[in-house]
Amino acid sequence: MEWSRNKRYRNYADWSAEYLLDLERKAACSDYKMNYHIQPKSGLLNDPNGFSFFNNEYHLFYQAFPFGPVHGLKSWMHLTSKDLVHWQDKGLAIKPDTKFDSHGAYSGSAIAVNDKLFLMYTGNHRTNDWTRIPYQLGAWMDKNGKIEKLSQPLINKSLFISEHFRDPQIIKENNRYYALIGAQDDRSKQGQISVFSSKDLTKWTNLGYLNFTDEKMGFMIECPNLVKVDGKVLLIFCPQGLDRNINDYQNIYPNTYLIGDSVDLDQADFKGNYQIQNLDEGFDVYATQAFNAPNGKAYAISWVGLPEVNYPTDKEGWANCLSMVKELHIKGGKLYQQPVKNIKKLRSEIPLEFKNQTGIICRNSHRQYELKLDINANQSGTIVLEADKQAQQGIKLKFNTGKDANLLVDRSSAGIVFAQEYGTSRKVKLNNQENLKLDIFVDGSVCEIFANDGLKVLTLRFFAPKEHQKIAILADKQLKYFGKMWYMDNM
Amino acid sequence: MEWSRNKRYRNYADWSAEYLLDLERKAACSDYKMNYHIQPKSGLLNDPNGFSFFNNEYHLFYQAFPFGPVHGLKSWMHLTSKDLVHWQDKGLAIKPDTKFDSHGAYSGSAIAVNDKLFLMYTGNHRTNDWTRIPYQLGAWMDKNGKIEKLSQPLINKSLFISEHFRDPQIIKENNRYYALIGAQDDRSKQGQISVFSSKDLTKWTNLGYLNFTDEKMGFMIECPNLVKVDGKVLLIFCPQGLDRNINDYQNIYPNTYLIGDSVDLDQADFKGNYQIQNLDEGFDVYATQAFNAPNGKAYAISWVGLPEVNYPTDKEGWANCLSMVKELHIKGGKLYQQPVKNIKKLRSEIPLEFKNQTGIICRNSHRQYELKLDINANQSGTIVLEADKQAQQGIKLKFNTGKDANLLVDRSSAGIVFAQEYGTSRKVKLNNQENLKLDIFVDGSVCEIFANDGLKVLTLRFFAPKEHQKIAILADKQLKYFGKMWYMDNM
Repeated sequence: MEWSRNKRYRNYADWSAEYLLDLERKAACSDYKMNYHIQPKSGLLNDPNGFSFFNNEYHLFYQAFPFGPVHGLKSWMHLTSKDLVHWQDKGLAIKPDTKFDSHGAYSGSAIAVNDKLFLMYTGNHRTNDWTRIPYQLGAWMDKNGKIEKLSQPLINKSLFISEHFRDPQIIKENNRYYALIGAQDDRSKQGQISVFSSKDLTKWTNLGYLNFTDEKMGFMIECPNLVKVDGKVLLIFCPQGLDRNINDYQNIYPNTYLIGDSVDLDQADFKGNYQIQNLDEGFDVYATQAFNAPNGKAYAISWVGLPEVNYPTDKEGWANCLSMVKELHIKGGKLYQQPVKNIKKLRSEIPLEFKNQTGIICRNSHRQYELKLDINANQSGTIVLEADKQAQQGIKLKFNTGKDANLLVDRSSAGIVFAQEYGTSRKVKLNNQENLKLDIFVDGSVCEIFANDGLKVLTLRFFAPKEHQKIAILADKQLKYFGKMWYMDNM
Repeated sequence: MEWSRNKRYRNYADWSAEYLLDLERKAACSDYKMNYHIQPKSGLLNDPNGFSFFNNEYHLFYQAFPFGPVHGLKSWMHLTSKDLVHWQDKGLAIKPDTKFDSHGAYSGSAIAVNDKLFLMYTGNHRTNDWTRIPYQLGAWMDKNGKIEKLSQPLINKSLFISEHFRDPQIIKENNRYYALIGAQDDRSKQGQISVFSSKDLTKWTNLGYLNFTDEKMGFMIECPNLVKVDGKVLLIFCPQGLDRNINDYQNIYPNTYLIGDSVDLDQADFKGNYQIQNLDEGFDVYATQAFNAPNGKAYAISWVGLPEVNYPTDKEGWANCLSMVKELHIKGGKLYQQPVKNIKKLRSEIPLEFKNQTGIICRNSHRQYELKLDINANQSGTIVLEADKQAQQGIKLKFNTGKDANLLVDRSSAGIVFAQEYGTSRKVKLNNQENLKLDIFVDGSVCEIFANDGLKVLTLRFFAPKEHQKIAILADKQLKYFGKMWYMDNM
């Protein structure tokens, strides 16, 4: 299908139900389907939105274009969960059906207020001459899932900000509400984070740009998120066009973070003296959304996909998925991301165990498993996931735990090659001569690798032939390691 | 919405995707939603279809009209499962899109043949003057879920059969295929089961009506099913208009069964001398479909709903659900139905335990649980499920395990009253002065009660106020019983 502008922005009422049902069938029958990750029922999924806790359960929404694997007219799809692992589909929650979100109900966040959930999001409006006007909008969702949009925008963009003004994160602090909004300064064309405050969620005051770095953050910052983690503050954001000398990355745009000691939102001042770093060292993480749950914990979930990148399932009419939910911790000034503990609920009862074995260690992964490895220091070798019989093809994890310690993930032989213009491997440094702990999750066409308790995370999509389901560990010398593997249930 | 004939039979291409998405949202947010039973994503669900094992998993389809809670233009929705408990949605599989199924892809069955699944179903065609012509049709589904319909009907109805000729069950026996098809004899206007055979699934020979009773089976038999159970043969069917003197029942139409010693399909002869009985003694079971899995076991699943009955969720744009999958056994000439053992996978780890307690025994059922009770002989009392604080309202199970032993289920005070023209209670006889074992499953708005290891099954829908979630056991005297309760996970 040719995705003309007209088709991308066609009203949902003008698509046929039959077309949608056929598209859903294709996605449901795909060889690349995931079973414990959230994927779209059809069409395209991108940013997680409105991640929150309300009415005794977790709520999550995501950016959706149900009619094809392209960035068309966006809406919010809704899911709920009691345990952050098993998600229930609640269907289409916010449609682009007002003047203010006529060209897309774009990303945003949510916060429980009394017996309702307040949703704050960006309405994308285009004028007749296709000029983009972003509005920051509000809506209330009741306990029955009924949503009422506010009739007027909460925040209109100021003259100092370009058409790029979106992704409000709403947080509550000292009985005030604050919104962090991704912005492009109109004069400098630089990425900024706008801070607004409100006492009543109605009247919002502009507190200016967040002061968090002296560096230039590219031409735009998307998806800013501020969460409290273990006594520190964590700022997660997506700078577009960031100079690679400030922070090295290979993806088209990075998803980065900064640890701070504290934040004074009224002064729009983020205090700390840490280095900007990549949240994920893999190929496909973007638009991570985090929030502090009532239990105080910080949870994050990422879009596994990138803007302006095409994926092989486009052919099947669907694209992308979300990551597992990750719990965030900061220890010794370092960020650790790990899948929520409840993910263990999905594990098969009895794990397979491996010790020092090399060659094929598992003949049939079913492409739905967790693999935990503890590899001794001063060794090198290659783990091949979703390998063929000869273990020549597959996702290759090359590790070196000696001097120059590092972990390299290579997906160049893991099936359909895509996005190769951004490279087919990713490498992270490790501490020299230390054990390497890996916790690897594979599900259909997504792989999430947590190294050393989540100090480094590498996430990737892959599209391997169905019959490549072996796991191999290859080394020139005898290896010392211990491993466990669990088949994982569907969520 | 007024459901005119035009609207019911509107092409799927002429419904809008927005309408469908809105309807799905309503069903997903319903207070009556089930979490471990199959329900439609939107619109109406009726007969289970194509229950089979193929490509290392169980397949199940169901009759669907996605656009409203009415019997409109039907299609087949598809699900798969590894364990008969956790089902994965595979979307719309058979659409009414040929001349032969132009007015509905009606019920049928499936059987694995080499590396494909053969689907046999009834195509409902209406001529311009609205004369109904039923065709028995075939289709092949490959391992990727791709379905190809055969271009011509497998079986056209003979002159001796009226327009009522549907629901083929395909079975294989001694290297031949047989089809049992529900039929109305055109001359007598009586219900019959037509038997056909084929060597190659292409050419079908009419073997006449199945000889299985001397009684008149009403004006039509729907959904015939023949399965082997523990050395016996079991015939499950739905006689419409059956004389209540032949078999007593209260529902609009019963779902009945007959145990036989053997069957000679070539002679269309069902041998046995047993009484026709109700498969379910509750309010809402119909169109049960059973099949013999490769492991030899007989599994059955029922539509929890009835023809010509309206349900309270009609207001929300959806209706009905399927039962759990039941495993069938025959011992001492008696049929026992029990939920598949894997249903235990859904149980919470630690059960609540009760002993001889009366009054409120559980303050919050979460409306998603299994309750097992072992009640001593010579007692009487009332179990109230989904009760209010005073345990005056709710689903009432009145038991008497003394003389005149019986179990009565009364839903007259269990929320919205509906279908009351068929009575608001159901009663089954029990053996006098024996213990009563109950295994009760509640999920949202469905309740399945298995008495004495499934010798009697009572299934019902109920639509109770959200806040009525207590469980009480009431009795005039001290009771002797032991009980366990598990909260159940989502499927």
